[in-house]
Amino acid sequence: MSRAAFDRSEYERRIARTKERMRERELDALVVADPANMNYLSGYDGWSFYVHQAVVVTLDRDQPVWVGRGQDANGARATTWLDEENVRAYSDDHVHSPYDLHPTDFFAEVLSDLDVAEARIGLEMDAYYFTAKSYTRLRKNLPDAEFEDATLLVNWVRVTKSERELEYMRQAARISERAMRAGLDAVEEGVPEYEAAAEIYYALVDGTDEYGGDYPSIVPLMPSGDHTGTPHLTWTDRPFERGDPVIVELSGCRHRYHSPLARTTFVGDPPAEMERRAEIVVEGLNAALDAAEPGVTCEAVERAWRETISKYDIEKEERIGYSMGLGYPPDWGEHTASLRPGDETVLEPNMTFHAIPGLWFDDFGVELSETFRVTETGAEVLADFPRELFTA
Amino acid sequence: MSRAAFDRSEYERRIARTKERMRERELDALVVADPANMNYLSGYDGWSFYVHQAVVVTLDRDQPVWVGRGQDANGARATTWLDEENVRAYSDDHVHSPYDLHPTDFFAEVLSDLDVAEARIGLEMDAYYFTAKSYTRLRKNLPDAEFEDATLLVNWVRVTKSERELEYMRQAARISERAMRAGLDAVEEGVPEYEAAAEIYYALVDGTDEYGGDYPSIVPLMPSGDHTGTPHLTWTDRPFERGDPVIVELSGCRHRYHSPLARTTFVGDPPAEMERRAEIVVEGLNAALDAAEPGVTCEAVERAWRETISKYDIEKEERIGYSMGLGYPPDWGEHTASLRPGDETVLEPNMTFHAIPGLWFDDFGVELSETFRVTETGAEVLADFPRELFTA
Repeated sequence: MSRAAFDRSEYERRIARTKERMRERELDALVVADPANMNYLSGYDGWSFYVHQAVVVTLDRDQPVWVGRGQDANGARATTWLDEENVRAYSDDHVHSPYDLHPTDFFAEVLSDLDVAEARIGLEMDAYYFTAKSYTRLRKNLPDAEFEDATLLVNWVRVTKSERELEYMRQAARISERAMRAGLDAVEEGVPEYEAAAEIYYALVDGTDEYGGDYPSIVPLMPSGDHTGTPHLTWTDRPFERGDPVIVELSGCRHRYHSPLARTTFVGDPPAEMERRAEIVVEGLNAALDAAEPGVTCEAVERAWRETISKYDIEKEERIGYSMGLGYPPDWGEHTASLRPGDETVLEPNMTFHAIPGLWFDDFGVELSETFRVTETGAEVLADFPRELFTA
Repeated sequence: MSRAAFDRSEYERRIARTKERMRERELDALVVADPANMNYLSGYDGWSFYVHQAVVVTLDRDQPVWVGRGQDANGARATTWLDEENVRAYSDDHVHSPYDLHPTDFFAEVLSDLDVAEARIGLEMDAYYFTAKSYTRLRKNLPDAEFEDATLLVNWVRVTKSERELEYMRQAARISERAMRAGLDAVEEGVPEYEAAAEIYYALVDGTDEYGGDYPSIVPLMPSGDHTGTPHLTWTDRPFERGDPVIVELSGCRHRYHSPLARTTFVGDPPAEMERRAEIVVEGLNAALDAAEPGVTCEAVERAWRETISKYDIEKEERIGYSMGLGYPPDWGEHTASLRPGDETVLEPNMTFHAIPGLWFDDFGVELSETFRVTETGAEVLADFPRELFTA
């Protein structure tokens, strides 16, 4: 347990809360394949989610069971709070196998061994890395089990954060500030995009004087020039040019907890229209942050943004934020509450959101974001970084 | 098409080869959800695989159809060779939706529009990001279609590389050399693991004097000390200590093409047993590389390694390499041919493999790897880096 990020008691509370939801859903067992959920329940932390693996929770056992590749069993022993009997590994001939052998065949054996082969089993049907094949093979191997879609069951347990989780998110925010400064400093006429990305990555991993940074679940995104209208393209060899808007979106990460941050900069003197859009985004973001407090709904937070921009005759249909924290590639979002019309989730203390409103038009986009925690009375913004349009 | 990494004719050849395999399998359409396969066929390159997306190939159309999120349609226009009619985007209320709305509902509409709603459709049942839910929803939405498992169909087309692909892999190898040098230089007694990781990341993205590096599909792995027996744990705040073995595995990346490289270093004077193991790994790796040539099977390459280590009374059951090249997180492997017993794939010119034999024991592990191309007569190792145990 040398590397465990939380006390055993915290994992036990997570398991207890997960079991509560399993009981509500009348599930005897839950197969958790989302790496963030696996980490949340077991502590497991390794770059091994490119092979099939899972954590299995059953109502009648105190500890979950880690199921993965033989090569990764030592990693499970090193990072989880689980006893040896709860680390179950399959042999390497299951991996990308030319034979008729699939890792979930082994999952089925474990489920049988845990006496739930004929029980009601929850599956994360829409989670990353739980493939269609995993599902069809499990069904075939366990014909007497009853399968239920339990996507997001654990994600919803993750929505309110503990003190320790918030501590890691604040550490991540310190790293985000440094990385954002490094990125904005690096953007300059004639400098290739990849150089700015390299500076950001260095800062993200080098961390602060007290601690380093984990790899973020999403790479630094840095759409520039025409490509500010393409928010998810990554850096290229292109040098920044005078007249380029550049959006920098990044996140520091500690023990897999994130605190994302986005800012927009402009190479040269920004046109008046750019400045105007940035002011609108800041005003709308501030309005959304002011609206956030316990008892308010997610859609009400979005409404504060939308009402602000509508004063300037702008309409926008995308959501402006989402609950997040713990994550593995490809996402730091939790896929639970979203700041958007129709989401009636009520804010509670220690929920954490990334509010990322932006105005993208055909010519260029402006985006500014903050990660915030819902407090007893309002919202605490985790990073301390000027909320304005930058110039390079 | 400003950012396309290949000529249109190369994409057309890929589509033609994919259709050949579809005809062999009697498939009218193929839904490709693996981001590497999507890129291979369409050129699409964005960090958007955290939402559902796909490329659809139908036998009767020249171009594939990109299907994704509205926000990413501009990215598809910028990076693919597709005409506007072949970029189809769903609205944002499909994303992590609280409503009964799933992106694959839109996929089904597109498939209907392409006249294949009652046809034989291949699905990548075991691909990253094609979830169990995607499958069950597609089935529900297209009750008259016949679905076939077409996992790896495109991956097998990718196995032999074109000149242009090899050019990118060689560029990636140049970056791998620099990043490995940076990593080995950074490992030192008292230096925290994250500092070495930061130096490696900087070098990976900063690239060479002529070009930058993409983000690699796997983060630099750097198990050290006791953790060399846990190959997939990532860096921590722990300072390197005298007596630590450290395995560095990384890959440069260009236009999503990789050239992975692994070396082992030792903090202080390595014990004789460590040096002995390193020599065995080098001897075995050299034997495997010598064995590789057209006409030889994958298992014969592995056998050359296994026979070498058996001279020293060592047995090892894991595979020692795999076909690779193009990739997105979480993997740069292609999941096709593996260097392991039982894999009878016959080597052909311009196949590319990462040969990564290692000897892991309970106390510590040693690993050295090379990326190689099968030539007309043997194997070309892409990186130029001393094949030995390093000391720090």
